[in-house]
Amino acid sequence: MQKTVIVFGAQGKMGQAALKGLSRHHVVSASRSGNACDYKVDITSEKDLKAFFERVGRFDAVVNTVGYCEYANFLDMTDTQWRTTIDSKLLGQINVVRIGAKYIADGGSFTLISGILSSKPIPGGIADATTSGAIDTFVCCVANELPRGIRINAVNPTVLEESWNVYGELMPGFQPVPGSLVGKAFERSVDGFITGQILRVDA
Amino acid sequence: MQKTVIVFGAQGKMGQAALKGLSRHHVVSASRSGNACDYKVDITSEKDLKAFFERVGRFDAVVNTVGYCEYANFLDMTDTQWRTTIDSKLLGQINVVRIGAKYIADGGSFTLISGILSSKPIPGGIADATTSGAIDTFVCCVANELPRGIRINAVNPTVLEESWNVYGELMPGFQPVPGSLVGKAFERSVDGFITGQILRVDA
Repeated sequence: MQKTVIVFGAQGKMGQAALKGLSRHHVVSASRSGNACDYKVDITSEKDLKAFFERVGRFDAVVNTVGYCEYANFLDMTDTQWRTTIDSKLLGQINVVRIGAKYIADGGSFTLISGILSSKPIPGGIADATTSGAIDTFVCCVANELPRGIRINAVNPTVLEESWNVYGELMPGFQPVPGSLVGKAFERSVDGFITGQILRVDA
Repeated sequence: MQKTVIVFGAQGKMGQAALKGLSRHHVVSASRSGNACDYKVDITSEKDLKAFFERVGRFDAVVNTVGYCEYANFLDMTDTQWRTTIDSKLLGQINVVRIGAKYIADGGSFTLISGILSSKPIPGGIADATTSGAIDTFVCCVANELPRGIRINAVNPTVLEESWNVYGELMPGFQPVPGSLVGKAFERSVDGFITGQILRVDA
């Protein structure tokens, strides 16, 4: 069945990976810059999200691939760096669900993004790891109280082949996976019946 | 060996439980109100923590039992309620480690508090659960990068018998445990050699 699926961060590497799994669906794309997307939305802004959901009309699923993180050694990481990471990767994603839940169709689904650093930590990745762990827990718990048959899952991927040139040097011993494989996890969340699951994609 | 152990939240139910496991040690007690404690410290304030660690002198271990959480159904929980919870239970505890790590003795230890709701969710507990999951992940990951042999663990307890009159009604089917058992977990963290561990205490 074709669904209308909102994709936040559609122009990013993870957004492009998600889109590979959503080709049968009608995608509404959004990003902070709005470049090459249908809408310009900053998920850290409740106001932006409310205005967006008011405008976009009926939709069946939301896929969020946005989660900006600061990277630094723990002892060097400032309060501001922690807050910037929490505002986007944790509270931004919570905003998407909290506000989007008022607008999404019955039986709709949310798919959030966490990441492998919560279980395979690397130097500099503590804020990414901590907020990823928070999102994994959030998804498992909040699934129990979403109304109207609404589902929620998180995709927890390792690094993408498409991002290896940026992150590879920081991640010795990690095996990147193709975006198409991560796209399958988004597809399994959107097109399946599972809820409260962490879909880990690792090699 | 007797150690000097700082206990934040020493007058709370969880602080009292921790103290049961620390009877052989020299305890320096602190809390936000300062009532019946050696020091008045708000862990959400970097300034408070810096001033406190400057004053307190040499110490071997920090036990934090403070983590204020807001409780509400997810769809009713406001951004302010999320931020209040994150400021205390997540960023407050991170502050304790980030700032305290500059002052703690070589081979010292930090013991933080998370909680059972991250693995056994209840209605209204989503912010507690999410920040507890974040702390569990934080502890597992940051243990790899603390310098000078500093250790870190989290105690993840179920509800205390001593708090059952307050929380019992909200937690049907949970079995409370005595504070003395939770005190054992704090003792095992402070007096042992483990690091990066989640010490779950459940019946």
